[in-house]
Amino acid sequence: MAIKYELIKECKQSGARLGRITTPHGTIETPIFMPVGTQATVKAMTPEELKKINSQIILSNTYHLYLRPGHKLVEKAGGLHKFMNWDRPILTDSGGFQVFSLGDLRKISEKGVEFRSHLDGSKHFISPEKAIEIENSLGADIIMAFDECAPYPAEWNYVKNSLERTTRWAKRCKEAHKNPDTQGLFGIIQGGMYKDLREQSAKEIIDLDFPGYAVGGLSVGEPKPLMYEVLEYTTPLMPKDKPRYLMGVGSPDCLIEGVIRGIDMFDCVLPTRIGRNGTAMTSEGRVVIKNAKYAEDFMPLDPNCDCYTCKNYSRAYLRHLFKAGEILSARLVTYHNLHFLLKLMENVRNAIKEDRLLDFRKEFFEKYGYEL
Amino acid sequence: MAIKYELIKECKQSGARLGRITTPHGTIETPIFMPVGTQATVKAMTPEELKKINSQIILSNTYHLYLRPGHKLVEKAGGLHKFMNWDRPILTDSGGFQVFSLGDLRKISEKGVEFRSHLDGSKHFISPEKAIEIENSLGADIIMAFDECAPYPAEWNYVKNSLERTTRWAKRCKEAHKNPDTQGLFGIIQGGMYKDLREQSAKEIIDLDFPGYAVGGLSVGEPKPLMYEVLEYTTPLMPKDKPRYLMGVGSPDCLIEGVIRGIDMFDCVLPTRIGRNGTAMTSEGRVVIKNAKYAEDFMPLDPNCDCYTCKNYSRAYLRHLFKAGEILSARLVTYHNLHFLLKLMENVRNAIKEDRLLDFRKEFFEKYGYEL
Repeated sequence: MAIKYELIKECKQSGARLGRITTPHGTIETPIFMPVGTQATVKAMTPEELKKINSQIILSNTYHLYLRPGHKLVEKAGGLHKFMNWDRPILTDSGGFQVFSLGDLRKISEKGVEFRSHLDGSKHFISPEKAIEIENSLGADIIMAFDECAPYPAEWNYVKNSLERTTRWAKRCKEAHKNPDTQGLFGIIQGGMYKDLREQSAKEIIDLDFPGYAVGGLSVGEPKPLMYEVLEYTTPLMPKDKPRYLMGVGSPDCLIEGVIRGIDMFDCVLPTRIGRNGTAMTSEGRVVIKNAKYAEDFMPLDPNCDCYTCKNYSRAYLRHLFKAGEILSARLVTYHNLHFLLKLMENVRNAIKEDRLLDFRKEFFEKYGYEL
Repeated sequence: MAIKYELIKECKQSGARLGRITTPHGTIETPIFMPVGTQATVKAMTPEELKKINSQIILSNTYHLYLRPGHKLVEKAGGLHKFMNWDRPILTDSGGFQVFSLGDLRKISEKGVEFRSHLDGSKHFISPEKAIEIENSLGADIIMAFDECAPYPAEWNYVKNSLERTTRWAKRCKEAHKNPDTQGLFGIIQGGMYKDLREQSAKEIIDLDFPGYAVGGLSVGEPKPLMYEVLEYTTPLMPKDKPRYLMGVGSPDCLIEGVIRGIDMFDCVLPTRIGRNGTAMTSEGRVVIKNAKYAEDFMPLDPNCDCYTCKNYSRAYLRHLFKAGEILSARLVTYHNLHFLLKLMENVRNAIKEDRLLDFRKEFFEKYGYEL
């Protein structure tokens, strides 16, 4: 078995889980946030920098790597780890979410999805079998089943059909998977914002017996309270002895709320994307570094942070770099944002150890400017 | 005196100089190449990375920093070193070359140069006194006099007037300089491609007694052999006990040829600019990494290089990053190119020590594909 999950303890105050996932490329302390390296690189970062801020696992995107440079090339290079010089765990998504996001450019059938490349308009077809073939070539430690992610809002009937197809596809993914000993295949629970459908999907997917499960179809435009509600009735349906992954979530409040509702793993482009655009997540809320008020502000980005960026550079300098369009600006704020989220998750793990995650949430939200 | 130069030895084979410059922020082994950090950052690099590849001194541009973020802001930040987190020596140019390059946007008079900002069209005036005021605010270890750089080609009369004005301006710069104990002001010898005018300029500038001298007005479009010829009759006019700086030169052949003609210091945007665009300087000549032939090439960028990029990444990966527009591509090739030039200069220094710089040139040129 490629993936082993160990539940270390549950927070007495919140019920949140502290755990450990063992993979062929090392162990991961959970709950954890996974930086996103869409095109075989976490934008603006080197692997060494990712390690310096304690990135335990990163995510990469099957859809993008399939189109460019191609999974066969990555396989020839010795797999994704070697290609991108990252020797810690990697998770690849299945490309499902990306191809469904293509809108008019894709056509869904029971067999799979026909779509046109966002790069050159060329025609492609990804089936569950094809997605797994690509993921087997890439060689990530954790790979995701090819699912259909329903949009929000969506009718009950639409979501029901979609989740049932996701179950059939999950079965086909499992059958197509060639490396169960070195790559853990996770199933994805769908069902939109409908309790009965989440129950149906959870039962069907869990019956297939995967080494881990994701909650898909959330963070797709619904209000946050609705997402929390879905989590509240979905995670109790999931086995305690398998890791639980909430896909596409990365704002600090959602991470904490997700953990409190029993989630172990998260990923999101948020910290890297807003970092490149000059927005920092700090202990006192968001800082938009291009704002004129920082022109002569010689304080660090986050006075309570000890990351490389905050130890060495002022807001005035960072603002200058952004105004001047310098690459270093994207590097430094990306670095800070990822450090911020990974440190947050470390603090969350410590709060679980100390049975005080609800207190931690209260303190964090007050400082950050969130409402409970 | 801010700057002390010590001539350690001359190469018995070539006459090239091995030396050492002592500055308030440390010593520099010469001959040396200075990476360019136009806007208070060497594009795509951190100071730590610059140190890892043994950058001893970097250059920054007065014109750019004056316009953005403004020299007064940099002064408030504690000076350029602190602002950009670089504690080794810095050299600032005077902005002369940049404002003259503005073409129709500038008007020259004896008092100075009126010009419009390339950023927002706003009107500015830089005189020799103003240039030194800015450079004093920035606080670099070596600062350059405000000169007039004649274009190529240019009439004898034009160049003569221009060099004589450069002399008058050099005098005014020296008088305006407020920090001679902490910032070494270098004079710039002009005179275009005319031997008599180079002699006139050298005499006039050297009579003013600066702690170092630059050869300006070269690498402005003239053929390389002409540049070498000018150097051949200019450097012998320069004092042996002061450092000699050839401005704006950075291709490997010109560096070696410059050293052979008695130059100690060089700067150029070449390695960083072509690096960002995907062209690498390697021991076997230039590699344009985007070329299709590298798509499945799993060799390092330069098989004879031991830099971070070459130790960890393949040409196929670098090509992928460039095709995908990833920031890491610019980082990795910039890193390699600067490492390549700094290593070249280290090898040049060693060849001088061993009195074999002409042999070294021959070997290097053969491998790189240059003709002697």
